[in-house]
Amino acid sequence: MANLLVDERDVKFVLYEQLNIEKLAERDRFSECSRDMFDMVLDTAQKLAENELWPANSDGDTQGVSLIEGNVKVPESFHRLYRLYCEGGWALLAMDPQYGGQGFPVVLHCAATEQFVAANIAFTTYLTLTLGAARLVEAYGTEDQQHTYLDKMLSGEWAGTMCLTEPQAGSDVGALRTRADRNPDGTYSIVGNKIFITSGDHDLTENIVHMVLARVAGAPPGTKGISIFIVPKRRPENGAMVDNDVITAAVEKKLGLHGSATCALNFGEKGHCIGYLLGQENQGMQIMFQMMNEARISVGLQGLAVSSAAYMHALRYAEERVQGPHISTMRDPAAPKVPIIEHPDVRRMLLWMKSVTEGIRSLLYYCAYCVDRSRSALTTEEAALWLGFVDLLIPVCKAWSTDMGFKVTELAVQIHGGYGYCREYPVEQFLRDIKITSIYEGTNGIQALDLVGRKLTVNQGALFRAFVDETEKLLIAVKPNVHLSRITALFSEARAHLIEVTGYFAQKGLSGDIMTPVLNATPYLELFGDVAVGAMLLWQASVASKKIGDLYVAAGADNTEKKARLHVINREAGFYWGKIASAHFFANAVLSLSGGKARAIVSGERSALDIPKESFVRW
Amino acid sequence: MANLLVDERDVKFVLYEQLNIEKLAERDRFSECSRDMFDMVLDTAQKLAENELWPANSDGDTQGVSLIEGNVKVPESFHRLYRLYCEGGWALLAMDPQYGGQGFPVVLHCAATEQFVAANIAFTTYLTLTLGAARLVEAYGTEDQQHTYLDKMLSGEWAGTMCLTEPQAGSDVGALRTRADRNPDGTYSIVGNKIFITSGDHDLTENIVHMVLARVAGAPPGTKGISIFIVPKRRPENGAMVDNDVITAAVEKKLGLHGSATCALNFGEKGHCIGYLLGQENQGMQIMFQMMNEARISVGLQGLAVSSAAYMHALRYAEERVQGPHISTMRDPAAPKVPIIEHPDVRRMLLWMKSVTEGIRSLLYYCAYCVDRSRSALTTEEAALWLGFVDLLIPVCKAWSTDMGFKVTELAVQIHGGYGYCREYPVEQFLRDIKITSIYEGTNGIQALDLVGRKLTVNQGALFRAFVDETEKLLIAVKPNVHLSRITALFSEARAHLIEVTGYFAQKGLSGDIMTPVLNATPYLELFGDVAVGAMLLWQASVASKKIGDLYVAAGADNTEKKARLHVINREAGFYWGKIASAHFFANAVLSLSGGKARAIVSGERSALDIPKESFVRW
Repeated sequence: MANLLVDERDVKFVLYEQLNIEKLAERDRFSECSRDMFDMVLDTAQKLAENELWPANSDGDTQGVSLIEGNVKVPESFHRLYRLYCEGGWALLAMDPQYGGQGFPVVLHCAATEQFVAANIAFTTYLTLTLGAARLVEAYGTEDQQHTYLDKMLSGEWAGTMCLTEPQAGSDVGALRTRADRNPDGTYSIVGNKIFITSGDHDLTENIVHMVLARVAGAPPGTKGISIFIVPKRRPENGAMVDNDVITAAVEKKLGLHGSATCALNFGEKGHCIGYLLGQENQGMQIMFQMMNEARISVGLQGLAVSSAAYMHALRYAEERVQGPHISTMRDPAAPKVPIIEHPDVRRMLLWMKSVTEGIRSLLYYCAYCVDRSRSALTTEEAALWLGFVDLLIPVCKAWSTDMGFKVTELAVQIHGGYGYCREYPVEQFLRDIKITSIYEGTNGIQALDLVGRKLTVNQGALFRAFVDETEKLLIAVKPNVHLSRITALFSEARAHLIEVTGYFAQKGLSGDIMTPVLNATPYLELFGDVAVGAMLLWQASVASKKIGDLYVAAGADNTEKKARLHVINREAGFYWGKIASAHFFANAVLSLSGGKARAIVSGERSALDIPKESFVRW
Repeated sequence: MANLLVDERDVKFVLYEQLNIEKLAERDRFSECSRDMFDMVLDTAQKLAENELWPANSDGDTQGVSLIEGNVKVPESFHRLYRLYCEGGWALLAMDPQYGGQGFPVVLHCAATEQFVAANIAFTTYLTLTLGAARLVEAYGTEDQQHTYLDKMLSGEWAGTMCLTEPQAGSDVGALRTRADRNPDGTYSIVGNKIFITSGDHDLTENIVHMVLARVAGAPPGTKGISIFIVPKRRPENGAMVDNDVITAAVEKKLGLHGSATCALNFGEKGHCIGYLLGQENQGMQIMFQMMNEARISVGLQGLAVSSAAYMHALRYAEERVQGPHISTMRDPAAPKVPIIEHPDVRRMLLWMKSVTEGIRSLLYYCAYCVDRSRSALTTEEAALWLGFVDLLIPVCKAWSTDMGFKVTELAVQIHGGYGYCREYPVEQFLRDIKITSIYEGTNGIQALDLVGRKLTVNQGALFRAFVDETEKLLIAVKPNVHLSRITALFSEARAHLIEVTGYFAQKGLSGDIMTPVLNATPYLELFGDVAVGAMLLWQASVASKKIGDLYVAAGADNTEKKARLHVINREAGFYWGKIASAHFFANAVLSLSGGKARAIVSGERSALDIPKESFVRW
């Protein structure tokens, strides 16, 4: 089967030609890694994705999950997938060998995960949170907790979740009411209702380990009084596993992601729900942030992966669907009909999708690569620098990828025409599935506030300054390449606009006006994402430009015509040419707007704040 | 029940304060109309929409349609709705009294239709095409054909459809293969397969009259050889109704619009399908264009109506959903929680939705009003001028309204957070339902080509020049109003950019380069829509500004504080203030981008054309 999920050539381009991840092996932490091993992992992941996960993707959608006598049943085909995933030891891929992990770079795990999510996003929701929960136990658990939970979670024998949201506490996590009462034996009794819990219950594992945010009696109000508890569905007691009073009250019927169980869970209805404190009391938000940050990158990755599958399907359709003559022969009714990829408007949509998808891929892999650089750093300063990029980019990775990803799936439907609206083609499922990504793990509006209110202000803007420095290095490096001068100029302008707006926010902040940055947080994040993705595509274009130059020389292509032919007959030349085209297109279509976007922010226009509530429609 | 579908105050603002439709009564054609009559119609439409159509909206979605033994069944509740619609004589509202119509302006019909579509878009698909088909018979039918079909279709006893698409002929209508063979009695035998036929079969009426495009033997290839036929499901013969060999082969399962039957129809499988030529042979496309143009306005209206309902639901949710403290007290965990409409990011989304929805409403009503002005014109020149606006604006009304409408529904989901993704709230249905509007009746890409390739070139750009003149009049009229100077400046700039790009296209066309306009047709249409909607909002703001001035004087509000209070306590002042806020917001957030959008076009960037097919991903 042809790969309609992820362009593996582009994956390898990012890993080996842009990020040069083989060089990570120079550091102790990754000294046993090699390109051969990376390739083997990627290849295995791709096969699992294509041959197993993808064929079950529509099962998840059409069969969905069901709640039968208090237990959630997932589609039958997911059980085999889960077994294969566990047998492959995929959860262990980037875990520390000290905990039985394989010690690969996070960026490789990221690439493998893209394959899985592109093939079957609903199924992967049962995997991602287990890993995140396990990593909390790894980082904050007592030896005893690690002993009880870690192996079982990493092997997939037990699953995990994160339980934050309550009916009255969504974006406002601090408003949660779930209670934890201290017991004499050091455990806590948990009582409360959680909603929208992804993979909150299912029949893939014999046990599910919930990471539950709750408030201990007497704790301060708001987020400062939140603690985090390990609350298993079944708890170990006297050598046996006993029911821990966690009830699945409901499973949501949703727009998409039908194969993923979104549950309402009641803890301690009968008074028998025991929780085990993770870390210290009132440290809950701080601890959960590790899991939330990982989850936010995962969600960005979902945006990427579904976009990738949507783009690939649209591309294939555009190559196969024959409709109308080429525009140059449109007046001749006898002219041959051509595949719709020949039509300029379709090609424009495809190149938008290509550049955005590849830009997101690069940004997310880069972010994961920064984690690896941080973990393998030689000094604490170096580690902090790389981690700073991660912190700064997380909200952008989460929000920009999912908002633009949604638009990629919308265009995939559009390219399919009437067929795209019909359920027999997979693109309408992509559109439905991906929509959740702009909502969960902190809505994209919350991400924008995180970027503007938190990330920009860390150390008086140190994270942003590091980003400015890093992109300046890029500009200096690409400047001599005259083939890229237009992209470089547009990027340079856009970057200047971003710096201008950031300075404007800083000024406003200093003068005590936080409303202006808050009001413009989402437009700012959009501009930031444009620039960050623009940087990635420019970087890629400069790599591709060098490679293509080498290919010209090797092929003796010394004039325009020979070069053009080389792009068609030589797969590699064609690929690199495509990278440069993506960068050109994105710079022109997207970065050209950055001046206007900046202007709309620094104008100080405040209608949305000033308008009285009564001026919206009245009932 | 509060109206969560359409803001009736805004409807009346457009009709009576912006367009002054009462003045239409000065013309013979509408001499019997009055404001009281208009209001009664609007009021009746609203009640029917709210009390009857809306409660059945989710039936359409959850029950959908089914094909049982060759017959399509619609949801049971639709039968009552259909009866009420027919009893109300709604199809007759704007029809010529000569054919039993009520002779109201089309713009009023448009306002009534917005109510119906907002309440239940799927149901209304059974109405709209019947009317369009009837109007073809009115315009092109023989006396005999009119006698046979017109009354029955206008009364709703029989329904109608338009049958263009075939499996190999979607956007490329000229590729259709359905055959029409002349019979000795002057009728034709029809043989062929049509797909994606909206309301192609159903059990609401005893007969369905299909307007079928087909090719007579020996006709020229392409669109020039297409004829149009009246092909009833059951045909009158010797005083009886006999089966006319039209088979419903399948009903599509779709992303949304489940209550509307999208059918594959086989004509003449048994050789007994008779068609009656409408007009002359080979005139089919020309005739069908009347119906397509009406259908395109109807689809734009669907974009408007669903946006309107989505906006109203999001607004209501934002007023009721309490979450988190006000941003000014965010550091205080004991601060009271507020409705999310108090949060700047939510308010920003709501004001975007408000300005876009109101802008689309104004544009569509204006377009309908132009039809009325044309029909009631005193001279042929005047009639042509007004009809020119309609011709120019149709592709913009269709494409911009549906693309932006989709984004309005996306934001409605976003404002609902996790709940928006769940099926118990209606917004996810809006998102699914509206997506078809950017696809059917000519994809939005086709609309852009129609605008650039056809409408801009009519009479050497006469339609566009008239639009330029009309917006210049607007600019001159609003210039003295200093309160609107920023909106005026931004609009004036955006308009200049549109003129610049249009000139650039004209130059390219003259130099024989049609690829550049074709490649940029969609970005151009977007810019055109921004400017057209910007013009509408500026016009509205100038009306509102005058009204609000009058209210200040009447209330003795002579300083800023008193004025601000007036907006809150006085519903009318609040409403007008909201109109000005919409215009301000749209100008700042959208029109600020016009320079960048224009620049991206006139840069002449051609990556999407130049990139070899092989540079997209290879299999």
